[in-house]
Amino acid sequence: MLVEGKDYRTIWLNDIDHGIVNIIDQRFLPHQFIVEELKSVGDIIIAIKDMHVRGAGLIGVTAGFGMYFAALEACNKVDFRKSLTQMANELIISRPTAVNLEWAVKRQLEAISIGSTINEKINISKLTAQQIADEDATNCKSIGLNGVGLIEKISRKKNGETVNILTHCNAGWLAFTDYGTATSPIYEAFDRGIDVHVWVDETRPRNQGANLTAWELLNHGVPHTIVVDNTGGHLMQNNKVDMVITGADRVTQTGDVANKIGTYLKALAAKDNHIPFYVAIPSSTIDWSLKDGNKQILIEERSEDEIKYILGMHEKEMKKVLIAPEKSPAVNYGFDITPSRLITGLITERGICKASESGIIGLFPEKNMLDGR
Amino acid sequence: MLVEGKDYRTIWLNDIDHGIVNIIDQRFLPHQFIVEELKSVGDIIIAIKDMHVRGAGLIGVTAGFGMYFAALEACNKVDFRKSLTQMANELIISRPTAVNLEWAVKRQLEAISIGSTINEKINISKLTAQQIADEDATNCKSIGLNGVGLIEKISRKKNGETVNILTHCNAGWLAFTDYGTATSPIYEAFDRGIDVHVWVDETRPRNQGANLTAWELLNHGVPHTIVVDNTGGHLMQNNKVDMVITGADRVTQTGDVANKIGTYLKALAAKDNHIPFYVAIPSSTIDWSLKDGNKQILIEERSEDEIKYILGMHEKEMKKVLIAPEKSPAVNYGFDITPSRLITGLITERGICKASESGIIGLFPEKNMLDGR
Repeated sequence: MLVEGKDYRTIWLNDIDHGIVNIIDQRFLPHQFIVEELKSVGDIIIAIKDMHVRGAGLIGVTAGFGMYFAALEACNKVDFRKSLTQMANELIISRPTAVNLEWAVKRQLEAISIGSTINEKINISKLTAQQIADEDATNCKSIGLNGVGLIEKISRKKNGETVNILTHCNAGWLAFTDYGTATSPIYEAFDRGIDVHVWVDETRPRNQGANLTAWELLNHGVPHTIVVDNTGGHLMQNNKVDMVITGADRVTQTGDVANKIGTYLKALAAKDNHIPFYVAIPSSTIDWSLKDGNKQILIEERSEDEIKYILGMHEKEMKKVLIAPEKSPAVNYGFDITPSRLITGLITERGICKASESGIIGLFPEKNMLDGR
Repeated sequence: MLVEGKDYRTIWLNDIDHGIVNIIDQRFLPHQFIVEELKSVGDIIIAIKDMHVRGAGLIGVTAGFGMYFAALEACNKVDFRKSLTQMANELIISRPTAVNLEWAVKRQLEAISIGSTINEKINISKLTAQQIADEDATNCKSIGLNGVGLIEKISRKKNGETVNILTHCNAGWLAFTDYGTATSPIYEAFDRGIDVHVWVDETRPRNQGANLTAWELLNHGVPHTIVVDNTGGHLMQNNKVDMVITGADRVTQTGDVANKIGTYLKALAAKDNHIPFYVAIPSSTIDWSLKDGNKQILIEERSEDEIKYILGMHEKEMKKVLIAPEKSPAVNYGFDITPSRLITGLITERGICKASESGIIGLFPEKNMLDGR
């Protein structure tokens, strides 16, 4: 997507020197736009661990490139295979909860094993890394193409008046290679000339909405307004929201959604005000082993410091300030569960379906067969 | 209530020098506890205007003391009455939206007019100021005595296990002279030895929950935990909240509640999880002229800077940091409307009633007669 008028992905292989992978260092957004050069498996691990990159999709893609570097580095070692496996394991543990990370590393190990010479293995790993990145972008693009019709329909119904869409957290292109999930139908609509405006929940405590989603939309030129997380209900009560689109971290096969803390509250308000509430996901987000989100999905508890301290810009320097009594405890749940009954539909790379077991299986019938039922 | 082990009100007449009114300068909370001395009408106006004091009740009480200073200062002027009226008007416009402010000033003008000598007028104004403060504290105490039974009942039902209460914003003693409204039943329960724990919504954008409510509870020794505003729904889904108590800025005679933005979202979650949701108010908060909160109450829009910048402590200095893209717009609605259907009851100084026209009139029958019906 556009940054300062130029088209970017979140990660790309340097087209002159193939020993360099470029990423947008997201730690400094929205205040500074910094492109970082990664040159080794070690650089990749630091980038994942210290959150230069974040978001399920992008973490997977970055790990894919990490395995390309691993192949490059292993060819100088005595035992290529042993060395490769060791680096693969280091990559996998760099962010323990990211499913896509392990998936990408294992896909690379399998692909690399097919090559018969070291050179072939290296070439395969480079191609596979690029494939993983391209597939991620293609899936996101498909989500946009599948979801844009919902926005077009509202726009027609409103005779071309502004379509107001509320989103929570960052399920934007910064969390993937390109386009994003929740944002993809929005970018598609905007690029087609539909009059859209996005309400951006700031998304405490890490403020991914204000820091990342707002920055994305600003740079691509999409009209948007930041609101605190408390505001969505009031906006919906006053006909200022036409639809809600969020992403998800995990979806059960029955359509319950685990997403950034606060999503459930917005879904309740959407229901109370008869506003459609969509969740945009690549199908890899669906966990086919789960049937009840609230009972089966363990919610990550993060550090209380993310609540009590906040990072911001003060006189051109990043400063962390304390915003609560030092001695008061805080608790920091990362996600919540939005039950399927509050969700109008899921927008996937294959199409739109109801957030229900039959809806999801209808779109992914092969999963039913795999399940043996 | 207790601060560092000593009992305080938010405002008090210096008991040696009656030309001094002491206040807690709330701008520095929770980081610094500073008692300020006010010595003139000018000091009082600055304290109200620049929010050294805030909260409907406390603003009214402070203005009451302001009129005592006005009487003291007017006695040195050629025309006592003209001078007094002028200062009264200056006080009234120091915070335009605060109803209690105008009410307190007018009550003082009426009281002062009864005195036949200047000395008598000054004495009356001092007594009236203290009366206004005492009445505010007494009303809050009554709210606590009326509401504590609800907490006791839950405690009994849970066989003495911790009663978890969620609150939003600061309807604590810092917003009044003492005890607060939402917090008053909590302090009463705590002082009676009931095992209570409070979930404190940080309450973006001004963070009155994290800054003030948490500080209050910490100093009085009440167990509490700060959460971001996104968290209440998740807590309620997981049986971690036994009841919600908030304050209100304005209540219609039909029981709709205007309170800090985000209250509506918590009320929706309470309803969805069958958790009682109470609103604690002095009856002066009821606007007898209104029947429909969402249609009749205009919601204040405040500066976007309150969202995009935040004040906190960095290396022992208060610093304001930017926490969003500078060029992204933000919109800042101060309040929202919680419809009466989501409210279990109102806790007032006179007792508890349903949040409905008949419920409210049942408790305040004299208002029905005044209304001529």
